[in-house]
Amino acid sequence: MICDKIIKKRRKFRMLLNEHTIQEKGVEKGSVGFLLTPTKTEKELYFYITECGHYYCSRDYEINRNYYPQPLVMCILRGCMIAEYRKCRHRLTAGSVIVIDCSEPHRYYAAADGLEFLFLHFDGSNSHQLVKHILNTTGARPEGGSCAVIRQMLETRIEICRGYAAEPVVESSHWVYTLIKNLHRDNESYSYQSRSYVETVSRYINLHIGEKITVHELASLCGWSDSYFSHKLKEDTGYTPIEYVIEKKMTYARSLLFHTDLSVEEIADHIGYSLRGFINTFSERNNCAPGQLRKEIRLINQVNKKI
Amino acid sequence: MICDKIIKKRRKFRMLLNEHTIQEKGVEKGSVGFLLTPTKTEKELYFYITECGHYYCSRDYEINRNYYPQPLVMCILRGCMIAEYRKCRHRLTAGSVIVIDCSEPHRYYAAADGLEFLFLHFDGSNSHQLVKHILNTTGARPEGGSCAVIRQMLETRIEICRGYAAEPVVESSHWVYTLIKNLHRDNESYSYQSRSYVETVSRYINLHIGEKITVHELASLCGWSDSYFSHKLKEDTGYTPIEYVIEKKMTYARSLLFHTDLSVEEIADHIGYSLRGFINTFSERNNCAPGQLRKEIRLINQVNKKI
Repeated sequence: MICDKIIKKRRKFRMLLNEHTIQEKGVEKGSVGFLLTPTKTEKELYFYITECGHYYCSRDYEINRNYYPQPLVMCILRGCMIAEYRKCRHRLTAGSVIVIDCSEPHRYYAAADGLEFLFLHFDGSNSHQLVKHILNTTGARPEGGSCAVIRQMLETRIEICRGYAAEPVVESSHWVYTLIKNLHRDNESYSYQSRSYVETVSRYINLHIGEKITVHELASLCGWSDSYFSHKLKEDTGYTPIEYVIEKKMTYARSLLFHTDLSVEEIADHIGYSLRGFINTFSERNNCAPGQLRKEIRLINQVNKKI
Repeated sequence: MICDKIIKKRRKFRMLLNEHTIQEKGVEKGSVGFLLTPTKTEKELYFYITECGHYYCSRDYEINRNYYPQPLVMCILRGCMIAEYRKCRHRLTAGSVIVIDCSEPHRYYAAADGLEFLFLHFDGSNSHQLVKHILNTTGARPEGGSCAVIRQMLETRIEICRGYAAEPVVESSHWVYTLIKNLHRDNESYSYQSRSYVETVSRYINLHIGEKITVHELASLCGWSDSYFSHKLKEDTGYTPIEYVIEKKMTYARSLLFHTDLSVEEIADHIGYSLRGFINTFSERNNCAPGQLRKEIRLINQVNKKI
């Protein structure tokens, strides 16, 4: 009964939201906006949507601010929007998508009458850091293929909000994460190629885990000069070649410590380190000497077996 | 040329990994294990796989430890595994899946010869907190439907590792997040129903945002007693009914502050608060009085317009 009342009032509710959005200058009739309230668990652990909407705007529409709490994704359906952001002026027409870290100054407005677009603010987990990272690598404008996917995703999402359909927390969090994934540069053009030479190098190191491995060896494996290889690896993995080899050797050593009964000396030998060198390098990275870690593992196992 | 050598050595490489895994007592021939090294960006921002494998085990296989750095997911393919964890003894047969927060004591072993299973360790972003949350809500054993999906995911992943196929960081992070999603209880049985009454309540509050809303009003909307409703809402959203109404009103007020020119008095009135009450409640939650926030927004807008 009360539910019936609500269904009847849906119109009014939409109007209410309209009223609120219409108070933004230039937002026209027919526009909808939704404000969502996350649960405490969503705030603590998940990605979640805070606002989304479908706006029809006249030339008077303009947002100009230094700060808004949540990142924003917009997709233009019709007309033209100008977005000024991070020292770039983007001219966004039908099909264009832009992502904005609203904690930085941003301005966007209708270039003329007849602007129609979808927008969505999200938050939670490490979404702010992810958006910053996307902006620093891919930039504010996802590529062609992704734009179509994002448009579809936003359209569906707004339909879900219009229908007041319920959805489990985990589903909507996963949905936001998928959206974020699509804001990254297209796989083909980005890290796919990069990763495949990293895999080659990584395999080579695994094969020669006990040997001394030189930068030149790894560079020639990729058919590149030493300096280009060093530069590229640093860019793609964050490690210099030497650091990368050490990282892999130490990961392997840690696994041996956990999974085998090999002594610390044997493990050092296995990965081509002197005992002293191994202990120093390992301790530095794990805040714990390998012998100490091994002792703890043994002690724990004994105690557990007694129980 | 060097690549050819690598392909030839694949066998040796697998053997190498085998040797390392075979050093675990009870792990038999044909088993494979993969150790993966995350990039710096993965460590900082994404979910990533650290280890995975496909093990064939005799009755001698046993892992007994207080601590291992990464959460673990296992899926049994054949035979029987016993897992003792969080004061439960799980008997895992073909098709069973278990998730373990390895920072807590855990023991698992082959119940007899002929155990075959897939495993995967992952890390990054807030994966540890998510796993703890899953264990506290869903528990260590995902439900039937999810188990089949997880099994398929692990099988595919191990094939990818076998083929040394490269994959962009974002893709594998999204893959891990999908795996985590599937570890949560099935949608039907879990929060789907819960969420739909929350949506009803949420809609009602939106419709009556300027009015005083009682617990009884909201409870009867769901056809429940006041106390059951309060208990259920707290469980599902983390908020008591009163807190939930306040949360929604303050979210709405913040949006009005950002999006409209309404004065603080008008906004207070709009959400049914006295001016003083609104200022106090808003300030408490946003570490900033509404008037202050409004002033800052105005100032920023003026500065921006001058530029």
